[in-house]
Amino acid sequence: MVTDGKTLVAAFAERLDLRDWSGFAELLAPDVLYELPQTRERIRGRDRYVTFNAEYPGDWHIDPQVVIGDDAHGALLFRWTLGGESSLAVAFFEHDGSMITKITDFWPEPYDPPPGREHLVERW
Amino acid sequence: MVTDGKTLVAAFAERLDLRDWSGFAELLAPDVLYELPQTRERIRGRDRYVTFNAEYPGDWHIDPQVVIGDDAHGALLFRWTLGGESSLAVAFFEHDGSMITKITDFWPEPYDPPPGREHLVERW
Repeated sequence: MVTDGKTLVAAFAERLDLRDWSGFAELLAPDVLYELPQTRERIRGRDRYVTFNAEYPGDWHIDPQVVIGDDAHGALLFRWTLGGESSLAVAFFEHDGSMITKITDFWPEPYDPPPGREHLVERW
Repeated sequence: MVTDGKTLVAAFAERLDLRDWSGFAELLAPDVLYELPQTRERIRGRDRYVTFNAEYPGDWHIDPQVVIGDDAHGALLFRWTLGGESSLAVAFFEHDGSMITKITDFWPEPYDPPPGREHLVERW
């Protein structure tokens, strides 16, 4: 079955949020790579990556904000909530036309803005 | 001129890296919104956003890693270098078919991985 990046990314987010681990695994190539550049962590293979998500503690939820994809790539901007906390996170995807082959995941944390741009910027 | 998200995002990265401020401004709607969720900063309007970039200090460079877009959105994964430092950063885009109307920018910083997943993960 050939599909596009947008369909794969939307299904990724939905099945992850539902803890549909068998459906989630169907989206992943057997040798899928998962990388977290911020921590320089890498997980190799579908089984370990499904386990990583299934073991991730807490009643977390994923609410997609932007789902985008083409014939080779995809991107997801999502709101992550866990208990009373909420933040935006990002994932990029590579796929082979039927399964996801690579995921690059980012968890941007709040930081204080550098000085010097107050004349251009408002805060919220 | 109607264009797609991928073309707009590719031109955004190229003209920003070249400091081609007039060409850069042509890609932006007059009331473009620029948001940094990590610092809760917002810049309203093309003139201020061009100034923000033109005033950003240092000999920084942008090297696109993934450029993706559709008829309403776009996403950019890029390597940012400044002096000897280098990191990955992400931007999402909204556009109206000819100009960029919103940019949401993320600067994910390194952090230490939480314990409990060492059995699944390798480090690099």
